[in-house]
Amino acid sequence: MSLLVVGSVAYDSVQTPHDHRKDALGGSATFFSIAAALFHKPSLVAVVGEDFAERDVHALEHAGVDLSGLERAEGRTFRWGGRYSVDMNHRDTLFTELNVFESFKPQLNDAHRDASLVFLANIQPGLQLSVLEQVGCPRFVAADTMNLWIAGARDELLEVLSRVDAIFLNDSEALELTGCRTMVAAAGELRAMGPPLVIIKRGEHGALVFNEDDIFYVPAYPLEAVIDPTGAGDTFAGGFMGYLAETRSFTPENIRRAAVVGSLMASFCVEGFSIEGLRRLTLDDVRRRYSAFLALTRIDALAL
Amino acid sequence: MSLLVVGSVAYDSVQTPHDHRKDALGGSATFFSIAAALFHKPSLVAVVGEDFAERDVHALEHAGVDLSGLERAEGRTFRWGGRYSVDMNHRDTLFTELNVFESFKPQLNDAHRDASLVFLANIQPGLQLSVLEQVGCPRFVAADTMNLWIAGARDELLEVLSRVDAIFLNDSEALELTGCRTMVAAAGELRAMGPPLVIIKRGEHGALVFNEDDIFYVPAYPLEAVIDPTGAGDTFAGGFMGYLAETRSFTPENIRRAAVVGSLMASFCVEGFSIEGLRRLTLDDVRRRYSAFLALTRIDALAL
Repeated sequence: MSLLVVGSVAYDSVQTPHDHRKDALGGSATFFSIAAALFHKPSLVAVVGEDFAERDVHALEHAGVDLSGLERAEGRTFRWGGRYSVDMNHRDTLFTELNVFESFKPQLNDAHRDASLVFLANIQPGLQLSVLEQVGCPRFVAADTMNLWIAGARDELLEVLSRVDAIFLNDSEALELTGCRTMVAAAGELRAMGPPLVIIKRGEHGALVFNEDDIFYVPAYPLEAVIDPTGAGDTFAGGFMGYLAETRSFTPENIRRAAVVGSLMASFCVEGFSIEGLRRLTLDDVRRRYSAFLALTRIDALAL
Repeated sequence: MSLLVVGSVAYDSVQTPHDHRKDALGGSATFFSIAAALFHKPSLVAVVGEDFAERDVHALEHAGVDLSGLERAEGRTFRWGGRYSVDMNHRDTLFTELNVFESFKPQLNDAHRDASLVFLANIQPGLQLSVLEQVGCPRFVAADTMNLWIAGARDELLEVLSRVDAIFLNDSEALELTGCRTMVAAAGELRAMGPPLVIIKRGEHGALVFNEDDIFYVPAYPLEAVIDPTGAGDTFAGGFMGYLAETRSFTPENIRRAAVVGSLMASFCVEGFSIEGLRRLTLDDVRRRYSAFLALTRIDALAL
């Protein structure tokens, strides 16, 4: 099944309490597509500037990403800078330079319009809608969003929600968007807004998957050290969607497997800056960590 | 196997964003022993004042708690007051009146000295040590602690750690006590301080159990509404220890079951103020929610 992602390709400048990187390859579509490509070749629709380095084009191509939808525009590539707190659970955005992203109008070619699975990464909901207008009849559409759009583009976001099969969002965003106080209540509200599948991301605490009547508690793999959390959520979505595209099954059992794959891909992501934790991964690495997830959460029947 | 808990019996005044209770039955030993008693009769060692109501004595007796170690002293019962934030994940202590607890010196009778399982609830580490001096040769000793003692009684706390089989503490306390930045690293440090079993509680995110080389990710049951989180940690420990006392098995598999029982007892606890969520529970309620935990975390083998 063909997989399409529309989102950002960026240069990130990240400071953690221990180290930093300047102008490292980042962006939602980058993390998503590199994670997805381990399972199924994704097509990326995004824009970069004249300064986008050939080595980064090669990194994406080498990972197996179709770049026929990567537009190069006059100007500089989108840049984001952030700083993480000591516990890595909080970050401050230091700067956002939209640059070429400011006038980005996603244009899908004929192949992209026929995509079976579509991921609308975290971009302005109006742009997400313009992509939905262009795709034909996808089997499965998922969207990500963020607090900026919940506050500033609520009507368009609600329109997106009414037209997708799945929504990815953070726990605090789920509460903010719905006005609810628990994840269970928020997921119920979100499903009433449209998507039958709601995936609430909780950082180092994993994720909760609400799939119609099925609730699945996705653990996060406990790591000895976290280097850089940037891109973990997009990587989760990339592993999830890439696995679904490859296995072509949307049963509750396979949705659960896809969510575990998403979580473990995110655990690899945060073990390095930028795409360093993802770029040399093999399917065998995934299989090994999947086994570790099985062991981590195995519950025996009650002996009582 | 006989089970002993030493801790506080208190009157709690709790404000949540939606409701409040004044002078409701609380305290670490109360929550612990009512949760444990569903599985195995615990003996409680604590002190209350002259104002301790007969109905609260009856509530503990009715739950199946042995009160032969409940001392009644001149003065008022220990009181605590707290207020929860809107998301219920943060609380401020409004007041602490030690009252009769100020001069509490736990005195164990002969039966209590022979206990097989001992839980040292969150009290001053010096008092925890005095209890350890009095017990004979217990099979399994667990302790709880808090940030107050990490900062103010570190040497005694380290002495406690060197003498127990298991430590329960919150995630932030684990990081504070060890100076580590991840739970995996903190658990390694804590195990090096003594206890082979480290249980890191994470509130609505469940718990992590580090049992020698076994790591177990314990989910928290996702609830539609949380009424009052007070006592959830002590209830977790009570379910855990009560289950172990009844099943008499300390294998890694049974430690995992005990942790799930602890987590699900905590989920019942937070569904009501004070002990309201616990007092009418049956083993069948536990069995049903245990099945729900199994369904919640079930991961199928990877199809790839």
